Amino acid sequence: MVNYADRMKEIRASAIRELLALTKKPEIISFAGGLPAPDLFPVADLKKATDSVFDEAGKTILQYGETAGWAELRKHIAERMLKRNQIVTTPDNVILTAGSQQGLDFIGKLFLDEGDVVLMESPSYLGAINAVKPYLPNFVEVPTDGDGLIVEELERILQTTDRVKLIYVIPDFQNPSGRTWPLERRKKFMEVITKYEIPVIEDNPYGDLRFYGEFLPALKTMDTKGLVMYLGTFSKILSPGMRIGWICANNAYIDKLNLIAQGAVLQTATFTAAIVSKYLDMFDVDEHIARILPVYKHSCDLMISTMDECFPEEAVFTRPDGGLFTWVDLPDYIDTKIMADEAMARKVAYVPGEGFFPNGGNKHCLRLNYSKEPDERIVTGIRILGEVIKNNIK
Amino acid sequence: MVNYADRMKEIRASAIRELLALTKKPEIISFAGGLPAPDLFPVADLKKATDSVFDEAGKTILQYGETAGWAELRKHIAERMLKRNQIVTTPDNVILTAGSQQGLDFIGKLFLDEGDVVLMESPSYLGAINAVKPYLPNFVEVPTDGDGLIVEELERILQTTDRVKLIYVIPDFQNPSGRTWPLERRKKFMEVITKYEIPVIEDNPYGDLRFYGEFLPALKTMDTKGLVMYLGTFSKILSPGMRIGWICANNAYIDKLNLIAQGAVLQTATFTAAIVSKYLDMFDVDEHIARILPVYKHSCDLMISTMDECFPEEAVFTRPDGGLFTWVDLPDYIDTKIMADEAMARKVAYVPGEGFFPNGGNKHCLRLNYSKEPDERIVTGIRILGEVIKNNIK
Repeated sequence: MVNYADRMKEIRASAIRELLALTKKPEIISFAGGLPAPDLFPVADLKKATDSVFDEAGKTILQYGETAGWAELRKHIAERMLKRNQIVTTPDNVILTAGSQQGLDFIGKLFLDEGDVVLMESPSYLGAINAVKPYLPNFVEVPTDGDGLIVEELERILQTTDRVKLIYVIPDFQNPSGRTWPLERRKKFMEVITKYEIPVIEDNPYGDLRFYGEFLPALKTMDTKGLVMYLGTFSKILSPGMRIGWICANNAYIDKLNLIAQGAVLQTATFTAAIVSKYLDMFDVDEHIARILPVYKHSCDLMISTMDECFPEEAVFTRPDGGLFTWVDLPDYIDTKIMADEAMARKVAYVPGEGFFPNGGNKHCLRLNYSKEPDERIVTGIRILGEVIKNNIK
Repeated sequence: MVNYADRMKEIRASAIRELLALTKKPEIISFAGGLPAPDLFPVADLKKATDSVFDEAGKTILQYGETAGWAELRKHIAERMLKRNQIVTTPDNVILTAGSQQGLDFIGKLFLDEGDVVLMESPSYLGAINAVKPYLPNFVEVPTDGDGLIVEELERILQTTDRVKLIYVIPDFQNPSGRTWPLERRKKFMEVITKYEIPVIEDNPYGDLRFYGEFLPALKTMDTKGLVMYLGTFSKILSPGMRIGWICANNAYIDKLNLIAQGAVLQTATFTAAIVSKYLDMFDVDEHIARILPVYKHSCDLMISTMDECFPEEAVFTRPDGGLFTWVDLPDYIDTKIMADEAMARKVAYVPGEGFFPNGGNKHCLRLNYSKEPDERIVTGIRILGEVIKNNIK
């Protein structure tokens, strides 16, 4: 009789990662993942950067280093956040993490006792739910509309809910909904947050992938009380397999996060952080982003226009301004988990929506990713999915 | 008023990592770290392996991958554990981690509720104490002698202690004591463990670095009930900056550890794991180990012979058969933390022993590392340290 920790009762396999195993077969048209297109990775340039850093600092990049991570990369990140996101900060306010996912784990560890409340958009990123679940919080979902989190609902919840420790949000091209918060909503959100002094996780993995509209300032730029922990990553623009993300936060939070990182991993990999840093020295990452953007935009446009053509009017979906996902709302009586088997029988995969709601339910939604499949498979897959949906409409 | 989780009251900076910041100055002779000698990293060969894997599988190594980590590397690891440690296992019984440190965090998360008991050798690895502390266990220290953990003491503790969830041990060239358990003690230990069915963490970061005596079988080879989680790492033989370690355990534990890894980091870096795997394809790592061994052995011999010459007889120390450390036991009335300031004033650094005892105390011990400094600085530093110790002898 093995006696695991109580938290293990709450921890289940990620529906997405389980599904990804199934969708590896080449005959399956998969809209299920959230993988960046591997053809867009700057393989040759990363190789050049790697060779160069081996030659210049081979012994250093293979050795242990600072807990906060490679200083040169933290400097690049601070500069980049200023340039792209208008965030004024310093390299000492940055800690590197093995992707944003590790940042979520560290922040959960820092703030959450059993029974504390975490607020999340309804729906929200499944990986964030799974990252903090081991710390046994209660989740309260904040209602959303087409413009993201509804601030009046947030204030109502804050007025009536004890032990709110954190709120987790993705204001840009949210995973899973594809929605982006307009500027006015960001301002109102930060007013409420500042009033109630709630620590915020602002997760921005897709911010660089904007197809339409202007860049909008990060919540962190409106953070007068140092409440916002901004999470960034190179996973969507350079390489997820290198596992380099970061947290930018106030000094007090960063000090504590460094202690947590020491215990959990000693430090992020010196080696990969030095390579990414050298890549940023040698190449213009914004030029690289400018090259990959039209590809994602094209795939998004193709998927949305095919959905316009092939989906029944009962299917309501997001027209994303960027990112990797769109989100489909079907009539309440459709269970997208059951429907997924029908789609899979016809070799098309998507992620049923329920997993994105911290407290479950909402079985009538589903998430579609447009960044993996080539054009003809996007069209074929969406056509098939349209037929499957129509078969389920009463 | 920031409201952190209760666990943060228990989490302090690692004494070692704090000290390492101080010892960065080139004029300080540092016996404080545990860093492998950077001159021994196979920089050129790792560069060749990296170039090769970029060319052969650039897109794949930069992409997301399996939670358990790069399959080819897990295959290499399973084969290597058989060859070097006589452990019969499969790649599916291996999960990659960002160094052994992350393995310790995952195992703590899997097993420990607040108030559960973790047994550790007295003294034990400070990083292991810090890894599991956030899960708020109570530590019970198992007495040791020159041959490691005293099994009779372990059995006495198991007979009288409730809620023992885990025992953490380093049978080979222990950090900090430099001691190695003889075969008989390993057998007796596993008899007791099997009788009481206590999950074991067998941490073996230094196993490949043996200067004297025969390889001894891992505890995992005597594990008839699947209780032992064996932790290995490439940090001491290839590169700590790449952060590649692993856990080898029974299927049930590995399934749970995969769930924990999903939530905490999604997966280990595909990129670095693929490079290490390719290195193992292209080069004979045992030849590499055979090249670095004499260097560490020489430094160890030099430090020990200088200690024989310069330390007073009141200083009792380990003569290690391998690894990176020796351990000095001084008279009870000496506080090695206070004495560290005297040594530092004379530009010599070591780690005071107290931090290696989960429940503190034992202020009269200290740890010395011999892998970082060149010969003349080992001799100079140990001479100075001998004088400092003599000044403190009553």
